[in-house]
Amino acid sequence: MNETVKDCHALKWRAGAFSRELDHLAAEEPLEIRLGGRRFTLTMRTPGHDEELTAGFLLAEGFINSRRELGEIRRLRDSHGHPDPNALDVILNVPAEGLRERLQRNFHISSSCGVCGKSSIEALERRIPPLGGKARINPEGLIRMPMLMREAQTVFGITGGLHAAALFKLASDTTRVELPRRIRSPASIVSVSKPVDRQGASNLELVVLREDVGRHNAVDKVNGYALLHDGLPLSNNALMVSGRLSFEIVQKAAAAGVEILCAVSAPSSLAVELAAQLGMTLVGFVREPNFNVYTAPERIVC
Amino acid sequence: MNETVKDCHALKWRAGAFSRELDHLAAEEPLEIRLGGRRFTLTMRTPGHDEELTAGFLLAEGFINSRRELGEIRRLRDSHGHPDPNALDVILNVPAEGLRERLQRNFHISSSCGVCGKSSIEALERRIPPLGGKARINPEGLIRMPMLMREAQTVFGITGGLHAAALFKLASDTTRVELPRRIRSPASIVSVSKPVDRQGASNLELVVLREDVGRHNAVDKVNGYALLHDGLPLSNNALMVSGRLSFEIVQKAAAAGVEILCAVSAPSSLAVELAAQLGMTLVGFVREPNFNVYTAPERIVC
Repeated sequence: MNETVKDCHALKWRAGAFSRELDHLAAEEPLEIRLGGRRFTLTMRTPGHDEELTAGFLLAEGFINSRRELGEIRRLRDSHGHPDPNALDVILNVPAEGLRERLQRNFHISSSCGVCGKSSIEALERRIPPLGGKARINPEGLIRMPMLMREAQTVFGITGGLHAAALFKLASDTTRVELPRRIRSPASIVSVSKPVDRQGASNLELVVLREDVGRHNAVDKVNGYALLHDGLPLSNNALMVSGRLSFEIVQKAAAAGVEILCAVSAPSSLAVELAAQLGMTLVGFVREPNFNVYTAPERIVC
Repeated sequence: MNETVKDCHALKWRAGAFSRELDHLAAEEPLEIRLGGRRFTLTMRTPGHDEELTAGFLLAEGFINSRRELGEIRRLRDSHGHPDPNALDVILNVPAEGLRERLQRNFHISSSCGVCGKSSIEALERRIPPLGGKARINPEGLIRMPMLMREAQTVFGITGGLHAAALFKLASDTTRVELPRRIRSPASIVSVSKPVDRQGASNLELVVLREDVGRHNAVDKVNGYALLHDGLPLSNNALMVSGRLSFEIVQKAAAAGVEILCAVSAPSSLAVELAAQLGMTLVGFVREPNFNVYTAPERIVC
């Protein structure tokens, strides 16, 4: 059994009567993250890829900026010496002085920026390195992302309870586009037989997909994957998330250098404001054959 | 303009071309909550009903148990003396000794229960008063809840970006059922002309509905409404949420004494485990004419 799924029995009301049936649930368990043995944070998450989740979380919170600074992630052991499935200890490779400064800065941001969205955005802007501006995608590529994500989401079909985040590499511009047959948008069908020699990738490559009961955890896992594989910044990538786009998702994507962030559903007002400030391309309601671009449309070429 | 909605312009890709159109976003802004002037927490939320959100949050975290203990909620003022839309100060009416104990207990739970779900459930059980066992609902009533919630969700239709939580009062057992005509389930239609004289309410009364970019915030707002109106515990009520059921939602519902918790979508594994331990009735996938009961089915009578 996949560790992201747990079985239980449910009484299902169908056609006016109950029947007792086996059901599959998205697993949710707490993960304790320690820093050098000291309790640091606790998050509810779907088990699996815990090291990525931890790395991505520390990146988003500004405690590390690179694979090198991460040092080591160890699984804690219980009193019998068995590895604890729900607790990790992180040894940071950051000088004590730098770490103190980062802890203070982080504390400063989370405790003093609550007066208005503007000040929290400004605090983030100081912390997050400026985005590059080279990523390009075309409408056909954008529209394909949800389908490619769903195809890779093996777990969603079982539990109906997991959010997903998928990282795509934007392939080089002059290669031939090979669109899958199932895309029915007229615009896409036209381009099947033509080599693409304009700017803007439509032949995307799925780099990694992660799922979690928490949407922000799914993004942390993807970012952590990239960090652990020395793939930061994600400047030639697009990130697609299921569900909605909140401030927190934009913040996490920006921390990894994502230039194009897309979602199946709506962005919040603060998500759009932050993306505008950062110069990130924010795309919502990506539902074939349509989508909405909220900020930095210059990265979408057609 | 409703404060839960913000306007922006988006480039909409329709039929293979862009057009610039007005769009409506779910508002998201940070709320700073202070305790006696000291910074306590910061949460991203949709503005509106901030006092309810604050009261419900403090209830869920175990800092207050009643309206009386809440004392006073004041809006902070900026340097010009204007009320700050995004910051509140709470004066608790809890003796210093009791507050210290609650802070420690709360700290204990959030910092030491991360080793496994079981221990965090046990810690919660010690904190949350046992649920009563008197609430009853029948399948017709359950199936009506999502429709009644959607009818009341004025904002959702505009932004597509808000979660909702709706509190229903379970009406007395022997009153006449007046089902709206649009319910198409055969089981419901049969009962339209019959007075219900069995146990289990199907003529629900919507008490309050709250929306937010954060699902947990919507539940905090509903609980805060009940607390501010001296309506706790919510023993003769059912709570319906849009989206999914996580551990955190069950925890918050339990803190308010909710006995029947329902959702349009799937529960997580830990949500089911916690509900089972607490004896709460957990219902998922409420989609006419079906639903799934995961725990404590004895409150559903048919």
